[in-house]
Amino acid sequence: MPNTLALSAPYVIFLGDVPSAVYAKTAYGIAQWAPEKCLAQHRFAGCEIDAGLPDMSIAAAVAAGAKSLVIGSAPVGGAIQANWVPTLLDAIAAGLDIVSGLHTKLTDYPELRDAAEQHSVRLIDVRVPPTDLPVGNGKKRTGKRLLTVGTDCSVGKKYTALAIANGLAESGVNCDFRATGQTGIMIAGSGMPIDSVVCDFTAGAAETLSPDNHPAHWDIVEGQGSLFTPAYAGVSLGLLHGSQPDALVICHDPLRDHIVGCPNHPIPSLQTCIETNLLMARLTNPAVQAVGVSLNTSKVPADQRLALLSQLSSETGLPCVDPIIDGVQPIIDRLLASFASPTRCLNKAKDKDGEIA
Amino acid sequence: MPNTLALSAPYVIFLGDVPSAVYAKTAYGIAQWAPEKCLAQHRFAGCEIDAGLPDMSIAAAVAAGAKSLVIGSAPVGGAIQANWVPTLLDAIAAGLDIVSGLHTKLTDYPELRDAAEQHSVRLIDVRVPPTDLPVGNGKKRTGKRLLTVGTDCSVGKKYTALAIANGLAESGVNCDFRATGQTGIMIAGSGMPIDSVVCDFTAGAAETLSPDNHPAHWDIVEGQGSLFTPAYAGVSLGLLHGSQPDALVICHDPLRDHIVGCPNHPIPSLQTCIETNLLMARLTNPAVQAVGVSLNTSKVPADQRLALLSQLSSETGLPCVDPIIDGVQPIIDRLLASFASPTRCLNKAKDKDGEIA
Repeated sequence: MPNTLALSAPYVIFLGDVPSAVYAKTAYGIAQWAPEKCLAQHRFAGCEIDAGLPDMSIAAAVAAGAKSLVIGSAPVGGAIQANWVPTLLDAIAAGLDIVSGLHTKLTDYPELRDAAEQHSVRLIDVRVPPTDLPVGNGKKRTGKRLLTVGTDCSVGKKYTALAIANGLAESGVNCDFRATGQTGIMIAGSGMPIDSVVCDFTAGAAETLSPDNHPAHWDIVEGQGSLFTPAYAGVSLGLLHGSQPDALVICHDPLRDHIVGCPNHPIPSLQTCIETNLLMARLTNPAVQAVGVSLNTSKVPADQRLALLSQLSSETGLPCVDPIIDGVQPIIDRLLASFASPTRCLNKAKDKDGEIA
Repeated sequence: MPNTLALSAPYVIFLGDVPSAVYAKTAYGIAQWAPEKCLAQHRFAGCEIDAGLPDMSIAAAVAAGAKSLVIGSAPVGGAIQANWVPTLLDAIAAGLDIVSGLHTKLTDYPELRDAAEQHSVRLIDVRVPPTDLPVGNGKKRTGKRLLTVGTDCSVGKKYTALAIANGLAESGVNCDFRATGQTGIMIAGSGMPIDSVVCDFTAGAAETLSPDNHPAHWDIVEGQGSLFTPAYAGVSLGLLHGSQPDALVICHDPLRDHIVGCPNHPIPSLQTCIETNLLMARLTNPAVQAVGVSLNTSKVPADQRLALLSQLSSETGLPCVDPIIDGVQPIIDRLLASFASPTRCLNKAKDKDGEIA
């Protein structure tokens, strides 16, 4: 796809000396959601964190076909660690692209830059957006799009989008997960780091991420931020407008009482969040619908969980699930019921000229 | 002010060989709105465009106290012209900062960069935002803020904000025009090029632009874009949230039928624009009010103008003016009537401890 990041798989996931699972969330996320892209993990001697992949040396991974070394460890401070550099240089010399989502850029390290140039491999900082992004134009594109939105940051927008994309694919629906954050990009192998785009181009970047497609194709777009976060609502609105979603899934943590980092900003009600997102989304897709609610119920007492889901479902008129506990099938069912899906009746619905009706 | 651009006045405005007034809008804007900052203009032999300032050589302008050469010409393509370079180098050698709002950056020209370093002057590209901007936090700040918003781009948001700031100052109200675009920044001598900020920081940049101030002080913030432009609504929302305006003035072109560049997107009604801006603005200022409508009636037949203003005023319940024809006093009157203004009763309203009530 032009103008989005594109990574080369399969990956060897670099764990190095990561001291705890907390700092290896990237590795776990990739191993969980993109196992077909993960050939191996590479750990230093003594590292006890395990993403569940075969351990390989760089040489062995390259011999087995690896194309990229993906840094799966995120240390405090977000910098490349000095003791990683020899391994990264080995990987570069062996012909691997290096992929990083850390705050400091690979390209800020002259020794990595020089080696990458010498060996004609890429240093890919997935926080750095592509250049030459267009401004948005708001034109209707072909194909269908679902966007996950939320009442706040960190309420499951990426997880929910991945689960829906996987479920749709299992149902035989032609679809793509469209990543907008660094871990998502590593999982998808491509995407757009939307929150790093200069704001004049945010909507245009989102348009680029989900281009024209087959009328029955679904792009499942990973949401970012929330229209209710004082810091990031502009990012969310640019992504909403550029994605021109047909369907929205609202992600929510029912026990959170204020926006992360903003103690004076209460979490909006689900209903307010749904209505505001629909209102703003209509600018680029007047037919937008909400099709489900995805809840993080991990802290809800077990004996109250089902009652809460039932209550919120009744209040919103939408299927409500915890995607980790319940899965997302009820949302997928609602989505497919709400939208005519030519792929599901390809053999029945051709008109006289053989075109899809 | 930390973290915003700050220019050194007085200026010599560089017109060079600008061939027509169309390309000299920046120069005219600065001369009109910041005459106190404009010491001189500098034109090449034969240039017939006149911003109404004294013509001076670079040496004469420096001798008269100029601190910056501000490029007031915007050629097609937005690049520094080769035949300007000797003059820019002269200005640098004479100790002037060079200020540009062109698309291509001053700092992309090695000969200018080297000369600036040698002579310890600044090359200031006003499209380049300051570094180390914070993310937004949504905290209420002291002081009052007015933001101009619009039904589209290019509907008078800068002009209206400048006219209101001037009018308030003439009424003795303590206020500042806060610039968010390149010409505005040159006029104000400081500001934030909001649409060039990485989108994660847009709201934080807007917060930085109008910091805590005296409770009776007004910041009059130049709006950008519109919540109804598919390309730029995210910029507008970040600016709206970060500005946390107490008052909104809605700018509108009553004869435009679609969003610039988006033929399938009709211009919203004034009422829809007001309601949507108020709804979204309440996230960071629940007490926000609309205080006026600023119309561009230049293409409205003269015999229909007053009827139109009257009709829209009646529909919105707000004073409606064309700021160029009618001035903005009715909006200022509404603003001052709507907000208690301690500066206007400083000597009456002190409590026992001498604090302002």
